[in-house]
Amino acid sequence: MSQPSPTGRVVVALGGNAIAPPGERSTADDQQETIGRAMTSIADLIVDGWNLVLTHGNGPQVGTLMIANELAQAVVAPMPLHFLVAQTQATIGYAICNTLEHALAQRGSDLSVVPMISRVLVGAEDPGWDEPTKPIGPYLDDEAEAMRRMEATGQVWGKIGDRGWRRVVPSPDPLALLDGHTLRMLLDAGAVVVVNGGGGIPMVREDDRLRGVEAVVDKDLSGALLARKINAERLVILTDVHAVALHYDTPKQEWLGEITAEELRALQHQGHFGVGSMGPKVEAALRFVEATGQDAVIAALDDITDAVHGRTGTRVRA
Amino acid sequence: MSQPSPTGRVVVALGGNAIAPPGERSTADDQQETIGRAMTSIADLIVDGWNLVLTHGNGPQVGTLMIANELAQAVVAPMPLHFLVAQTQATIGYAICNTLEHALAQRGSDLSVVPMISRVLVGAEDPGWDEPTKPIGPYLDDEAEAMRRMEATGQVWGKIGDRGWRRVVPSPDPLALLDGHTLRMLLDAGAVVVVNGGGGIPMVREDDRLRGVEAVVDKDLSGALLARKINAERLVILTDVHAVALHYDTPKQEWLGEITAEELRALQHQGHFGVGSMGPKVEAALRFVEATGQDAVIAALDDITDAVHGRTGTRVRA
Repeated sequence: MSQPSPTGRVVVALGGNAIAPPGERSTADDQQETIGRAMTSIADLIVDGWNLVLTHGNGPQVGTLMIANELAQAVVAPMPLHFLVAQTQATIGYAICNTLEHALAQRGSDLSVVPMISRVLVGAEDPGWDEPTKPIGPYLDDEAEAMRRMEATGQVWGKIGDRGWRRVVPSPDPLALLDGHTLRMLLDAGAVVVVNGGGGIPMVREDDRLRGVEAVVDKDLSGALLARKINAERLVILTDVHAVALHYDTPKQEWLGEITAEELRALQHQGHFGVGSMGPKVEAALRFVEATGQDAVIAALDDITDAVHGRTGTRVRA
Repeated sequence: MSQPSPTGRVVVALGGNAIAPPGERSTADDQQETIGRAMTSIADLIVDGWNLVLTHGNGPQVGTLMIANELAQAVVAPMPLHFLVAQTQATIGYAICNTLEHALAQRGSDLSVVPMISRVLVGAEDPGWDEPTKPIGPYLDDEAEAMRRMEATGQVWGKIGDRGWRRVVPSPDPLALLDGHTLRMLLDAGAVVVVNGGGGIPMVREDDRLRGVEAVVDKDLSGALLARKINAERLVILTDVHAVALHYDTPKQEWLGEITAEELRALQHQGHFGVGSMGPKVEAALRFVEATGQDAVIAALDDITDAVHGRTGTRVRA
């Protein structure tokens, strides 16, 4: 696949699962260590001249905050989900900033890493409000317990592939970045920007006001919007599997390598790629490639260097 | 007192108590409403041409997060205090951004408001580590209950003036801003910046690394450092009382109006101005005025417009 120009921007979307240590007992140090491992490769790429803009998911992290919130609710008023998304932008962004600036400094670079508190516009009439699809928090392998929680609390739980049950929340489609002007300022000034964390803080427009809402936007769909907004030459979506697969985790499993948007869209229409797991990544890659004619890559976080170079994972081209 | 030049910057430090609705049952909407009220005056000042840089406290907010954290700790690993400070920068910054951008738009201004995730350096050997002084969270009027909590949990509680007991945590002195380069980028690009929220995320330097630590830095001392760093022409500290007083809340109470740094320093040395309440505000004002020869004001949030103009509160000059 063709390579971005020397000044071309590449949006790298880090999966929330891929950068989270497992389980709600993982500490802040565990989180920083897991994030720090990814940042050494990111620092290598930046020092090699790649012009990266980072975004990240927050599924496990926002799920954990929601659990803590609920456990404390008899004493402390629970925060709405848009506040929790903001909190994950702060903690994950802070951990990325600390570890990436350190890795850059070790390589002789004094670039500033700037985590943005960033908002996205969603529609008040989005169909996603009626059908929660975004999995957050830890997995549960006990179906009866998931059912019990649904009945007792009004929470919605869904079966996520073969990995068990997970709480799901509404995930309306991101329509526009609300902090594009700030993003542009920081990029123009040469910062390494971390933006749209957790898909961005979701807001709806009501009369002349913005109002935060109870949802978690898909970070890959927001990443596609981001990549279009800044005229990125590549969108790289990093997750915890090697590539997009047909018949994932079955005897018929087949990894997809280089593929055209048209072919991938056809496979999507045949019903491959589940909602809440690979589905949004495929949709995000397709939206970006179809709108811009540029490339998108879906690959494993462990293969980050090859993924950014377009040498591994599923490479989607026009 | 003399007025800042037309392009001169004014640092406005909003008290955490002053911008928080009372109690741990206050909701995100309550928080946004309380913050929004202050932002209408801030927007008026900005539209009038004042070049403001905002900072804010987080005592009540970080205290509430700490309580939620502790209530959930059997299930969810508690976050360290530096992560909680980052979270309050996100939620308070987000609320300031939403409400201030709205107030500016109503006045015909499309300025961007940018809350920064921002860090400050503190010393590993600071005497503050051994003597917690920073009050956070709700007040308790029951001394026996405060004592019980100290014994049961290892928490430290202190008597704060006549308003009751409050949990206290270490508050080492801020030595340097760690995100000065990002701040400069944003100011140069014309953004309204919210920086050093909650005093900044406290970090110590260990070999060639920064490490987050269990403390809450005083936001006024950080504000004084910020004001020096950006060559501000005025530091305005807004709180929930009218001005600095001698013999506060006693029959001998006397408000201080315009005063020289030398006179105020002498009163401080006589033992006026308590630790953890007015003490750090007076010290912050003095440090700024003594280092720069510029003015500082300590006044009530309700008097914000007159305070920024230097027409009310305690006005400290060289």
